[in-house]
Amino acid sequence: MPRVLRVARSRAGHGRPVARTAPRQLVVRHEPRNAETAPHALGAYLTSAADRFLRSNFTVPRLSRRAYQLDIGGLVERPVSLRLEELCLLPQRTLTVTTECAGNHRTTLSPLPPGEPWSGGAVSTARWTGVPLATLLERAGVRAGAVEIVATGADSGQVATGHARYARSLPLARALHPDTLVALRMNGAPLLPAHGAPARLIVPGWYGMASVKWLAGLEVVAEPFAGYFQSERYVYREPGQAVAPVTDMRVKSVFTSPLSSVPVERGPVRVAGFAWSGSARIARVEVASVGGGQWVEARLTGEDEPYAWRSWELIWTAPSRGRHVLRCRATDQAGNVQPDLPRWNELGYGANGVQLLIVEVR
Amino acid sequence: MPRVLRVARSRAGHGRPVARTAPRQLVVRHEPRNAETAPHALGAYLTSAADRFLRSNFTVPRLSRRAYQLDIGGLVERPVSLRLEELCLLPQRTLTVTTECAGNHRTTLSPLPPGEPWSGGAVSTARWTGVPLATLLERAGVRAGAVEIVATGADSGQVATGHARYARSLPLARALHPDTLVALRMNGAPLLPAHGAPARLIVPGWYGMASVKWLAGLEVVAEPFAGYFQSERYVYREPGQAVAPVTDMRVKSVFTSPLSSVPVERGPVRVAGFAWSGSARIARVEVASVGGGQWVEARLTGEDEPYAWRSWELIWTAPSRGRHVLRCRATDQAGNVQPDLPRWNELGYGANGVQLLIVEVR
Repeated sequence: MPRVLRVARSRAGHGRPVARTAPRQLVVRHEPRNAETAPHALGAYLTSAADRFLRSNFTVPRLSRRAYQLDIGGLVERPVSLRLEELCLLPQRTLTVTTECAGNHRTTLSPLPPGEPWSGGAVSTARWTGVPLATLLERAGVRAGAVEIVATGADSGQVATGHARYARSLPLARALHPDTLVALRMNGAPLLPAHGAPARLIVPGWYGMASVKWLAGLEVVAEPFAGYFQSERYVYREPGQAVAPVTDMRVKSVFTSPLSSVPVERGPVRVAGFAWSGSARIARVEVASVGGGQWVEARLTGEDEPYAWRSWELIWTAPSRGRHVLRCRATDQAGNVQPDLPRWNELGYGANGVQLLIVEVR
Repeated sequence: MPRVLRVARSRAGHGRPVARTAPRQLVVRHEPRNAETAPHALGAYLTSAADRFLRSNFTVPRLSRRAYQLDIGGLVERPVSLRLEELCLLPQRTLTVTTECAGNHRTTLSPLPPGEPWSGGAVSTARWTGVPLATLLERAGVRAGAVEIVATGADSGQVATGHARYARSLPLARALHPDTLVALRMNGAPLLPAHGAPARLIVPGWYGMASVKWLAGLEVVAEPFAGYFQSERYVYREPGQAVAPVTDMRVKSVFTSPLSSVPVERGPVRVAGFAWSGSARIARVEVASVGGGQWVEARLTGEDEPYAWRSWELIWTAPSRGRHVLRCRATDQAGNVQPDLPRWNELGYGANGVQLLIVEVR
């Protein structure tokens, strides 16, 4: 669905509902649908379902809620199959989680690697409600020798090596972490098909590729998984470096206000944004005005939740009319600092270079 | 003048002229005025005076054409002073010259250096008519021991080291080159105040800082000049490197069509732009589609003049709906190739990294 239809009253006041089309997202690819959250919507702490970015490797599978079944097998004491209503009746947990596509900001890498050309809108935050994956694994009983859990989605299609289903593995420790969820609801509502209905993984702190949508099966394995999306995609390949898996979101900050397309008046200007890191909470965000300006610490504001982005703001006084450039830089409590230049890698993941905001002051 | 007033007839046809404001340039700084040529105007081979970028270090000096006098002195046989009508009566030469601000594309450098935050609009092409500087120097008679010609503008103001006039030197050989002009006309019309009226230098192939506006004096000197704009600004300062003067424009190519803000329809799309280099003519421009795509050679089109940018085009067939990214890369006949990443330097000059064009295909 490229556009969201809204029913609104016409301005003339005749009371006749008219259909209005409002582009809610910036389309990166139409089929399978990939889209960014639009800049004006990136400023909200929680992103609505309509505004949320979409990243799909294959066509969205439409799963019947009635026929849905999650199979847990492999190296377990007793294979388990759970229907949706059984999942819904298990104890639920709700977490606010920022999810970022590993390819977000890929277009800031030079030379541009292959893959979807994401700008900065492939990140969103939502409240996810679901069953801890650990609860399900305890039910099945993980046997000795298990090293990973392979999560398989119902989506599949052609890749470079042939036909593949989307599948990613999690190390056992991460799979058993109480905050790794099989999510059934987003922002209080059942998941939409585009977001993984009826059930998807949520792996807080990791890039989005780990949060497998349209979850169909969980398999406990004794050897590291080497599927296409585990060993060919979503890995860091850098010249002269060993191939490394993409896991935690790297520390990053972005501007959300003012929008670069909207000129501001002279005088104090509220500059705001978000910062996040998969490794630790945000320790600070600094902003520098114009090239070579000193870094000034911004104020961390709003909610402080462990897996969600942190809002920040700063009152900046525009020194003169004209074009100004601001930079923002985040540091997390583990000491990771956002670098000026993103670290180049062949597939273009984890681009977290310092962002520029070009502001026109009138 | 931040906006150009146009008188247009109202749509209702009442015949009453209404003033319309049309922003012709993107303002970088209001005072002194610095502005970029707008993206839609960058596609013309010759840029009109209204669309031409403006780069001023100080407030525009308004010189009287009647009182104007160009003084040539220093290490010469006979000091010469020429009034404007005397300059106009000397043999003239017309050259098409692309001038680029040395700070153009500064915002593509990371971290962002100080200086005006130019995007890509600080480049324009015009037909300049004027007297070869060599003609004037022959009149004055350059004496043995001369090494440089210092050109001083009528503009001045505060800089980090105190009060300064704008002044830049040229090596004697470059000053005596028949294509270095004291220009009196741009695109056939007398120079506008913002562009250096009544006379300015034009140094083809060099970044714009050499083409001194509001030319007031020429001094032949026996020692290399070390004024503020010669030794403190417009130099390449790089970590671990000797300071080097900014001279020739580095090889570069840009997209001018389609505009990134305008979606295109599926099917063949004409992609076009310009390429230029201060060192040699353009040998080829290549375009690659999407990250990792192969470089495909574009067709060099239009006029082929030694000091002007070269237009190029390519018919690109959008393989699918959605966002696509194209890259363009120029190579000059001296073998200089546009690099993927611009070469960082403290003052942010000569940024000529490969440009991206993000195209939305519907």
